[in-house]
Amino acid sequence: MLRVGIIGATGYSGLELVRLLLNHPQAKVTYVTSRTYAGKDLNEVFPALKGHFSLKCEDYRFERAVECCDFLFLALPHGLSEEVGTRLSRAGKKVVDIGSDFRLDDLSQYETWYKRKSGRTGEVKPVYGLAELNGDKVRAAQFVANPGCFPTATILGLAPLVEKDLIERQGILVDAKTGVSGSGRSLSLAAHYSESTENVKAYKVGVHQHTPEIEQELTKLGGGGKVVMNLTTHLVSMNRGILSTCYGRLREKKTTKELLDLYKAFYLEEPFVQVMPEGVYPGTREVYGSNSCMIGLKVDERVNTVIVTSVIDNLTKGAAGQAIQNMNLMNDFEETMGLPKVGLIP
Amino acid sequence: MLRVGIIGATGYSGLELVRLLLNHPQAKVTYVTSRTYAGKDLNEVFPALKGHFSLKCEDYRFERAVECCDFLFLALPHGLSEEVGTRLSRAGKKVVDIGSDFRLDDLSQYETWYKRKSGRTGEVKPVYGLAELNGDKVRAAQFVANPGCFPTATILGLAPLVEKDLIERQGILVDAKTGVSGSGRSLSLAAHYSESTENVKAYKVGVHQHTPEIEQELTKLGGGGKVVMNLTTHLVSMNRGILSTCYGRLREKKTTKELLDLYKAFYLEEPFVQVMPEGVYPGTREVYGSNSCMIGLKVDERVNTVIVTSVIDNLTKGAAGQAIQNMNLMNDFEETMGLPKVGLIP
Amino acid sequence: MLRVGIIGATGYSGLELVRLLLNHPQAKVTYVTSRTYAGKDLNEVFPALKGHFSLKCEDYRFERAVECCDFLFLALPHGLSEEVGTRLSRAGKKVVDIGSDFRLDDLSQYETWYKRKSGRTGEVKPVYGLAELNGDKVRAAQFVANPGCFPTATILGLAPLVEKDLIERQGILVDAKTGVSGSGRSLSLAAHYSESTENVKAYKVGVHQHTPEIEQELTKLGGGGKVVMNLTTHLVSMNRGILSTCYGRLREKKTTKELLDLYKAFYLEEPFVQVMPEGVYPGTREVYGSNSCMIGLKVDERVNTVIVTSVIDNLTKGAAGQAIQNMNLMNDFEETMGLPKVGLIP
Amino acid sequence: MLRVGIIGATGYSGLELVRLLLNHPQAKVTYVTSRTYAGKDLNEVFPALKGHFSLKCEDYRFERAVECCDFLFLALPHGLSEEVGTRLSRAGKKVVDIGSDFRLDDLSQYETWYKRKSGRTGEVKPVYGLAELNGDKVRAAQFVANPGCFPTATILGLAPLVEKDLIERQGILVDAKTGVSGSGRSLSLAAHYSESTENVKAYKVGVHQHTPEIEQELTKLGGGGKVVMNLTTHLVSMNRGILSTCYGRLREKKTTKELLDLYKAFYLEEPFVQVMPEGVYPGTREVYGSNSCMIGLKVDERVNTVIVTSVIDNLTKGAAGQAIQNMNLMNDFEETMGLPKVGLIP
Repeated sequence: MLRVGIIGATGYSGLELVRLLLNHPQAKVTYVTSRTYAGKDLNEVFPALKGHFSLKCEDYRFERAVECCDFLFLALPHGLSEEVGTRLSRAGKKVVDIGSDFRLDDLSQYETWYKRKSGRTGEVKPVYGLAELNGDKVRAAQFVANPGCFPTATILGLAPLVEKDLIERQGILVDAKTGVSGSGRSLSLAAHYSESTENVKAYKVGVHQHTPEIEQELTKLGGGGKVVMNLTTHLVSMNRGILSTCYGRLREKKTTKELLDLYKAFYLEEPFVQVMPEGVYPGTREVYGSNSCMIGLKVDERVNTVIVTSVIDNLTKGAAGQAIQNMNLMNDFEETMGLPKVGLIP
Repeated sequence: MLRVGIIGATGYSGLELVRLLLNHPQAKVTYVTSRTYAGKDLNEVFPALKGHFSLKCEDYRFERAVECCDFLFLALPHGLSEEVGTRLSRAGKKVVDIGSDFRLDDLSQYETWYKRKSGRTGEVKPVYGLAELNGDKVRAAQFVANPGCFPTATILGLAPLVEKDLIERQGILVDAKTGVSGSGRSLSLAAHYSESTENVKAYKVGVHQHTPEIEQELTKLGGGGKVVMNLTTHLVSMNRGILSTCYGRLREKKTTKELLDLYKAFYLEEPFVQVMPEGVYPGTREVYGSNSCMIGLKVDERVNTVIVTSVIDNLTKGAAGQAIQNMNLMNDFEETMGLPKVGLIP
Repeated sequence: MLRVGIIGATGYSGLELVRLLLNHPQAKVTYVTSRTYAGKDLNEVFPALKGHFSLKCEDYRFERAVECCDFLFLALPHGLSEEVGTRLSRAGKKVVDIGSDFRLDDLSQYETWYKRKSGRTGEVKPVYGLAELNGDKVRAAQFVANPGCFPTATILGLAPLVEKDLIERQGILVDAKTGVSGSGRSLSLAAHYSESTENVKAYKVGVHQHTPEIEQELTKLGGGGKVVMNLTTHLVSMNRGILSTCYGRLREKKTTKELLDLYKAFYLEEPFVQVMPEGVYPGTREVYGSNSCMIGLKVDERVNTVIVTSVIDNLTKGAAGQAIQNMNLMNDFEETMGLPKVGLIP
Repeated sequence: MLRVGIIGATGYSGLELVRLLLNHPQAKVTYVTSRTYAGKDLNEVFPALKGHFSLKCEDYRFERAVECCDFLFLALPHGLSEEVGTRLSRAGKKVVDIGSDFRLDDLSQYETWYKRKSGRTGEVKPVYGLAELNGDKVRAAQFVANPGCFPTATILGLAPLVEKDLIERQGILVDAKTGVSGSGRSLSLAAHYSESTENVKAYKVGVHQHTPEIEQELTKLGGGGKVVMNLTTHLVSMNRGILSTCYGRLREKKTTKELLDLYKAFYLEEPFVQVMPEGVYPGTREVYGSNSCMIGLKVDERVNTVIVTSVIDNLTKGAAGQAIQNMNLMNDFEETMGLPKVGLIP
């Protein structure tokens, strides 16, 4: 039984890890940390855990982590994983970092978009943990940087087109919609019920910090040069879910059917990516609580543009579920072990 | 591997059975029926199933059901289970009926509240499938009538008080709140998004057909005579979830703590019922997608009344999850097999 | 033109006053205060006001209030109206206090339920501003204590029964449901979107501070002695709206029709209270944004209980709208002036 | 007092007209029709109207319409306005058609996008009723085709850019989000609460019938040739509101500030269009129930694209409110008469 620690267990990603790992046959949560709730049982913080999970939240200490755990998930705010992750890695532990500190290869990009200097030393060699594109590297990795929620939906949505060089790489437009849980458990006016219910609004237009992450990973595909894109994110009055609507200018004419066939072949072996039939555009509700990504697609010949709609649950495939998928690969478990494939409907 | 049939697979209870049984190690869905969608694969009706489940919906035929299945769930509208259930039962099949046809012992009560004559012949001897009160009978049963959603939350909320004769049996008041999925997948103005979002309203005040079911089962507890109650149901702008707020007049003074201790003892062995600490009143969100019932409780001494709040997910513990719990018991599987204990939070 | 000041203009009640008074032909907002946003135009705080309303928020100063305003609304947190209200009143200004400081006659009750000592000196003689019961007093008042949101819905729902002594006064039960905006614009975990959407839960069971206010006002009706009740409040995943479901034990048999006739007669002259036909139970959605109260009613003879369902919009009839209704009466304007009667549907 | 008829009063646009006209000082609803509810008082269909509005729904008859009304609104499904509108027009009545039958100049486009042949005879000369662009024509019109909801938000969002020829006309992309009330009061699975809550999904990608309407009106602006665009519509789990996120490729470099200044100048005189400061992107919630359009804007220099976000309430500015705005102009009333400018917040 793999002994698993969750550093930062009282945020939504941390809690989702706990919930999902309750159903995992090969892993067991043995260490949970929280600064705010140190000393309290996690089931006092979340009464829904009562009777099903009991473990006291501790203030994070390196020695305890090393002692209690074989494997660690970091679910920490920006900037807090750098030191923790490096040290655990040095101690020989396998780590998945759900945060953003280790995702960008180019630290000057990190500084530009995150408005802070990275504290990374180069000691850790993180693998970008999008298993559908990077599975072999993940299997061999000691340290995985778990993708962001928008990047997960968007890269999966665009990868086949970019790899085959079918769309212009300069000027890809991504109109993304997220549920409110994406902003976490920290209080803010934007996530206050009365301000966010029955609402949709754009935010961080053109300046969202997930932009360089998407550009970095798509650029690595095929041989067509650097991807430069606009990401316009929207907050939607729902709890979970991301929909990325991606617009790409076709280099040459393609039909909807041709592209759907390409996508089906591309994702044929992937248990968590499903390509829809022509005319079906998935809703976020259909992946509610599952680790799946569903993709629909349409060519609009009038404007020579392909429109891809890609949905995930931001807390599952967009965070904790994908982290467990990576844990499975890093430990030679079956990739789908303990992970829900079908969302709650309704 | 138990071969399972779902008669009426394209309603919400039917779909929830399919979704939950995908994770069940000892049972496999081998037969699904639908009048509306006969001939279509279930994953065409629900694209979220694509890649994860594939089976063609058939028009129900007795012979096919007998041939394909060891165990059957009936998820049919009022009045349609009587004949189907009786015949399958006669053929030696084990059956759980999620509908209401076999729940009431007194058929005249059925006629009064459902406004139609029961077609039951008496051949089937159904066991009322609330495992927390009736576990032994369920284990031995060939035919189980699965409880209604309001009765599940309400009976679990009131059982310890009634069994110990601590409250007046005449005049119990239950103010129940349900999410919209309780009304199923059939279209209606009441379940039209624009009419039900941002809304709460009472309906069927004092005439809800679940009233006699609650009275019947509570009356069987303890020795205090017939329970007569008012059930006032409310439709709340949420999808899943039932909250029963139950008001009972205390026969003698009791403190909140005394009653919570009683509840904890009563449900000590039950994996799916959790009693909250003093001052904690669970929300429906906390059991979203789980098979659990969470209970909070308070004595208001100013009016000599105990108030119990009991929450379940109407589609899981209130329908499909409880049905699988009963299937587990009827087949000597572990009671919790394949069933989620912790809800999706957030 | 009545010059109106709003003390505390950046909470939801304050903003609702601004919005409604934009349509008032005889009143004009001339002074708005805010501690947090002092120095900013109110339309920077709420961009929706841009182009329609412009006034700089000031830190409250007594002299400015006296100079700029003929009439004042206080929309302040607990405990802050006492001094402000007394001093403005002494200066001869007419005041409506939307807060709770001046609602209870018995200051020891205030201390018991609000857990703080009242700072009232007795100099101000507040009139309880429920115009449907107290219209004449309001017309003559210099200082009005605006009712709480739960009391407004509940007292209007129960007044005819209590005045005619038709129900037992000891043990009235009120199961109330409120939207999240009732908790205001201050951040809290309970009002965090991810925790409150798709949810219903009880809170402050039996200890809500609106309890003594309802008891006080109902007790004044008829001659039957002191009303003692339980108020169990629930938070529902919607923004605006209160539904009070009120349960009263009938002293003698009455039919639904008899009681509906009584209610229709009781509220015949009231422009903002509408009694529904038999079998119609209003939803909060139907009064969304209006100053109306809609009432449905049913006698359940099996338990000799009358169930009344009463809905209002907590920010309009439950706060700002009712405050303007009182302002109208205190200034000899038409009672309905500037107030919406019909809610937004859908 | 203008006597107003509403043909099709029991849909959401019809009801919104009734609600808004209750506050109109110069117009009075004197005739309401409904096929489904003929013979019933409108306040039986919508109990919220009780006490505030009473008029019996009639089956539409031309003679009654002519006799009872000076002015008529048509709120009918596709294809039903053609004959009704033509005949009323011939009888000298002023008409605003809220439906789509009279919006497109080129009837072959109508046939292509609506999949039916237009029945228009050419006798009626409709004016496209977007008052902000067409005010003078509307003032002089006898028959106005009220714009669709997506076109209203989108054309207002793009008009300044297109008129000044600042963006490429071929390949404009509009990612539009609508609340569920946009699909009306007719039942459908897409508008069933359980399928649409907590959801966002694309639909009618590239084939939405509002596409040619937007292209037609934008093409008329400036001298740059035909506009060809993609409209990808999304259904969001909210009731009211449209957000159009519009993407245009800039012909030459412009800063966000330059374009915002252009917009402010363009809409300077318009009471119902407000341009936000830099960095503010309005949410649909901010125009909930108002007749306003709020616009935010950003230039993303990395991809040489301008992103405009434009919000309206689909039932008010997107239907009934705009129709009354047109009625006001056609009758020499003040343009804003009876219309709310500020939305309900929260």
